[in-house]
Amino acid sequence: MSEGAREWLVPDGFLPEESSGSQESHEAICVLNTSGEEARLRISFYFEEREPIKDVEVVVPPERTRHIRTESLGGAEIPRGVPYAMRVESSVPIVVQCSRMDTTQAALSLMTTMAYPVER
Amino acid sequence: MSEGAREWLVPDGFLPEESSGSQESHEAICVLNTSGEEARLRISFYFEEREPIKDVEVVVPPERTRHIRTESLGGAEIPRGVPYAMRVESSVPIVVQCSRMDTTQAALSLMTTMAYPVER
Amino acid sequence: MSEGAREWLVPDGFLPEESSGSQESHEAICVLNTSGEEARLRISFYFEEREPIKDVEVVVPPERTRHIRTESLGGAEIPRGVPYAMRVESSVPIVVQCSRMDTTQAALSLMTTMAYPVER
Amino acid sequence: MSEGAREWLVPDGFLPEESSGSQESHEAICVLNTSGEEARLRISFYFEEREPIKDVEVVVPPERTRHIRTESLGGAEIPRGVPYAMRVESSVPIVVQCSRMDTTQAALSLMTTMAYPVER
Repeated sequence: MSEGAREWLVPDGFLPEESSGSQESHEAICVLNTSGEEARLRISFYFEEREPIKDVEVVVPPERTRHIRTESLGGAEIPRGVPYAMRVESSVPIVVQCSRMDTTQAALSLMTTMAYPVER
Repeated sequence: MSEGAREWLVPDGFLPEESSGSQESHEAICVLNTSGEEARLRISFYFEEREPIKDVEVVVPPERTRHIRTESLGGAEIPRGVPYAMRVESSVPIVVQCSRMDTTQAALSLMTTMAYPVER
Repeated sequence: MSEGAREWLVPDGFLPEESSGSQESHEAICVLNTSGEEARLRISFYFEEREPIKDVEVVVPPERTRHIRTESLGGAEIPRGVPYAMRVESSVPIVVQCSRMDTTQAALSLMTTMAYPVER
Repeated sequence: MSEGAREWLVPDGFLPEESSGSQESHEAICVLNTSGEEARLRISFYFEEREPIKDVEVVVPPERTRHIRTESLGGAEIPRGVPYAMRVESSVPIVVQCSRMDTTQAALSLMTTMAYPVER
């Protein structure tokens, strides 16, 4: 069974600097691995005015989801308050969705989109 | 007439634990069946740290939509406050969109995305 | 020049019954016609427990966008407070995105998604 | 390496007239260029009742993202408070996502979607 794609791109990444209320502003790369094998991910981050951070490693076990928060990725320090973008590569086909919670002002907002699957 | 796909995936599922105001926090799998036949769905739920719940059955009549709330699915008890993901399989081609309302704080937020159609 | 598809589907339609503040709760079918020809649309609405409303006619001029609010479509009375879904068919290829503003509680929320292009 | 598409369309553009709190209402065309070459963009804007504004030029360097706010594009004056739509053409394959922040009322809302890739 092969469900999804091995590479996904997300142009709109942003970690708000502020939060209010009970929920912290954050962004999550949500991955679904429906296969029977471990998915070994390499995640790269692109910026407007600096070199990319490449190949941060994350593992998603077989038949599991992981909602990976970008502010706490070991091996990558994503700055808050600046635009970034993401590439997710995987050893097996997966599906990737990216969501942001912004609580800068006193009421949360959410946004989400399926990532863009690269055909290859 | 065959419109849509027989299998759809959604990586970002989450049922907020709290609600405020007149609207309850919830998530809905929205299905459109434009065909002249009944769509027999099997919905599976994936988690981060437990085995999947597989093949919950739902029916969508011909030329009808159903907005299926995930907290009240007979045969599946989706826990609130933990990440999950969804797979929807159907006996006929359908289209699937997934939307969340989060009213944890005192003002609602909505997010939505078309699900990912698996090519097969 | 042929940009987009001739048929699009959106499973999650909903017109909130209430509004607050300066902005009315509404939903819009946003169409872009980049061609040099008029796009003659036929829009159908599907429900959970009643027959569809089919083939409401709308025109989008060449090289124009139209953001069509679903509560004010001549020829269709979409009830508020019940789930519905949409099909958009066009005489020329177009692109369709669907967005909702919900101001039931005292702070607006927005959601949007590209519609699903049917391959035919 | 060729990732994405050379042309993208977004039907739902709108710059809210008002803002509140610390965050200004705005819309951003978010571009990711993972290639080793400069991406030379031409962005066109479509309206409901006037001629399009065509071919505004923007550059995205190799291995960079740019989150292009539509209210401050040199060469284009996008009016606030009216519907518009966007076409993005690029000299190399890119990925485009479009996001809006609306702070008309006293609590922000966000929405986002991947743009529609034209196959050609």
